[in-house]
Amino acid sequence: MLLHRILRAHVARPSRISSISSFTQPVRSFSTTWRNYQQNPLDPTRGLPDIDASKLEVTETITPKEILPNKDLIFGRTFTEWTASDGWHTPRITPYQNLSLDPATCVFHYAFEAFEGMKAYKCSKDNSLRLFRPDKNMARLNKSVARIALPTFDGEAFTKLIGEFCKLDQRFIPSDKGYSLYLRPTMIGTQRTLGVGPSGSALLYVIASPVGPYYPTGFKAISLEATDYAVRAWPGGVGDKKLGANYAPCIVPQLKAAAKGLHQNLWLFGEEEFITEVGTMNLFIALKDKETGQKELITAPLDGTILEGVTRDSVLALARERMEKDGWKISERYLRMSELAAAQEEGRLIEVFGAGTAAIVAPIRKILWKEKMIDCGLQETEEAGAVAMQMKNWMEAIQYGEDDSTSWSYTVQ
Amino acid sequence: MLLHRILRAHVARPSRISSISSFTQPVRSFSTTWRNYQQNPLDPTRGLPDIDASKLEVTETITPKEILPNKDLIFGRTFTEWTASDGWHTPRITPYQNLSLDPATCVFHYAFEAFEGMKAYKCSKDNSLRLFRPDKNMARLNKSVARIALPTFDGEAFTKLIGEFCKLDQRFIPSDKGYSLYLRPTMIGTQRTLGVGPSGSALLYVIASPVGPYYPTGFKAISLEATDYAVRAWPGGVGDKKLGANYAPCIVPQLKAAAKGLHQNLWLFGEEEFITEVGTMNLFIALKDKETGQKELITAPLDGTILEGVTRDSVLALARERMEKDGWKISERYLRMSELAAAQEEGRLIEVFGAGTAAIVAPIRKILWKEKMIDCGLQETEEAGAVAMQMKNWMEAIQYGEDDSTSWSYTVQ
Repeated sequence: MLLHRILRAHVARPSRISSISSFTQPVRSFSTTWRNYQQNPLDPTRGLPDIDASKLEVTETITPKEILPNKDLIFGRTFTEWTASDGWHTPRITPYQNLSLDPATCVFHYAFEAFEGMKAYKCSKDNSLRLFRPDKNMARLNKSVARIALPTFDGEAFTKLIGEFCKLDQRFIPSDKGYSLYLRPTMIGTQRTLGVGPSGSALLYVIASPVGPYYPTGFKAISLEATDYAVRAWPGGVGDKKLGANYAPCIVPQLKAAAKGLHQNLWLFGEEEFITEVGTMNLFIALKDKETGQKELITAPLDGTILEGVTRDSVLALARERMEKDGWKISERYLRMSELAAAQEEGRLIEVFGAGTAAIVAPIRKILWKEKMIDCGLQETEEAGAVAMQMKNWMEAIQYGEDDSTSWSYTVQ
Repeated sequence: MLLHRILRAHVARPSRISSISSFTQPVRSFSTTWRNYQQNPLDPTRGLPDIDASKLEVTETITPKEILPNKDLIFGRTFTEWTASDGWHTPRITPYQNLSLDPATCVFHYAFEAFEGMKAYKCSKDNSLRLFRPDKNMARLNKSVARIALPTFDGEAFTKLIGEFCKLDQRFIPSDKGYSLYLRPTMIGTQRTLGVGPSGSALLYVIASPVGPYYPTGFKAISLEATDYAVRAWPGGVGDKKLGANYAPCIVPQLKAAAKGLHQNLWLFGEEEFITEVGTMNLFIALKDKETGQKELITAPLDGTILEGVTRDSVLALARERMEKDGWKISERYLRMSELAAAQEEGRLIEVFGAGTAAIVAPIRKILWKEKMIDCGLQETEEAGAVAMQMKNWMEAIQYGEDDSTSWSYTVQ
């Protein structure tokens, strides 16, 4: 979901790395470690203590970080963190620090790693600290780690710890709308072994970075290359889990798209060329039915090959609640690339956008498919369609506590 | 390829972790680092210095490790290493030490990691140090890292460095046959970034562990569960590369097989249930043709879903050179699970074995498939078939320098 900004920078200047890697000094880390859980290999956590938020230990930094002006809060530049370091039993918040790991640690060899992306917001009305649907992130992280035999954990307890962490660093979250603290819960296997087996120890940590608006000067529509030589996920694979394993193989298709001046790649599946995801975001397509003219908002179904995006789920729920009454049909279904192309040719394509935590929505201008450039419905002077804009506004109103009609905004106590 | 030993321990005693993680103190590491290679995103290494073996810097440990008696040289217990740390330009051999990495390093989040498994042997005839087909490992590692946009390197130069490393620690390699120094070349992405893009820096390191015979008391045949709920690899994926991403998702199927008292899982693909790999080894099946009675040795073809095993390639080459003249047909072709079952029912199944660096060959006793236990042709008192035994002998004769008829044994100068 951080792809857009990076890819854009990439296209604009090939030596983008210097700008990405020059982080300023982060300030804090939170961590909890877990060891020796091999009582039952298929249920490693059974009978062992879960995370106990009441045992949290906090070590304040002695060199507090200076608050940067909002304009410098660029995604991925400044970090404040939690780092996992001392057992499920005693969660800790410490100053940001490196991890010291044996080179035979299994995370380096066999990709024992899973993560989440989430954000903390300051409520526009009362300045309270808010998380957005943290239960969804915790449930997904637990599903991800279970798939690679890492230990699961109590998501509610961990959400409380994330709240404590955010409170300590809330001065880094500007109250201006669009600003937030990006949070990266991460679990890695830490056992030192070259044997391919379950990791006997794990580290769960969170790092954070104050971030500004994803589109500081308004939406910027992106263009895609439909990838026909590589496949992101497969039935029976792990494409629906947020595992590190799903990400490194995405880079070459990204770079190949960038080499053609496009921002990101579009993943297709099978001979039918079903539309699945864009880069590391879910994808939504709005079009009119050929027969009835009914407007339909479509995203790929959760068949095991699609990441179960929290933004995807939220967009679907909001669309069902607020757009169906205006005649929209909201569909989780397969859509072939050829159907999208036909809709465009016949003037039935309304708009296309990606959905993810970083940008909420990423409007798509065009898609290169089989040497054909498909226009996705935006006017030349337009950077986003009406549905994408509406969704971003609806989502932000909930995230910043202006819209209390859902139970999605979690107030940190 | 280390699965067999681990899985067996796992079945025998669920709390196997203590025995795996209790490494004794390793002694040395080798490393080379690579930074800022983003000149051309699709060819990151172009125009930049490659590894220069002549610039090697060696830092001797001040606490040399005691040589352990051979009986304690259990796979994965004792380490001596190379650790990557200071640029492709200046490779280093240093005492074994932890890696210190920022928790936002991309290897922890997006699985920027690839590795190799290889061994150094002491020649039975002249005590010279030998590597087995290191060019194959270097070529494969280069293919693996290129697939995840990590930098490639000069495989010959790196092989020389591995040789230097082995020479320094050759006192850890017993000259008894069956003993060797297991080597683990590893490359990880080290850029500190949460953006999903190519890593701007990388670390290439080698760690090593003296190992004893894989079958200290003779062959031990293993039994498998055919996995029908998960898929290891798919066309357009990365299953033919030795990436960390391919390994963590293998653990749960391993554990499920273990829960049924079986040692490992067998990966099938597609509706046809084509036989692909066993755990993390390639698989060979020997059977007689239904019509002609001709003996055939079969392994899955390299269609992008099969790891291009060095042992696989060597077994095929030896079989073609030494078995065809005895009437064997040597085939890289698809074989359905149902065909294997039919061959067994009709008394045409000769033997089945896995092939990998750790064990060379791993004879298979039986396979559980759809609630049916398929006997793979071994007598009850037998732990290996004739082809597997022959292959192990042929391979070891080459690895230990007794058979000079191939160019596969590389003498460290």
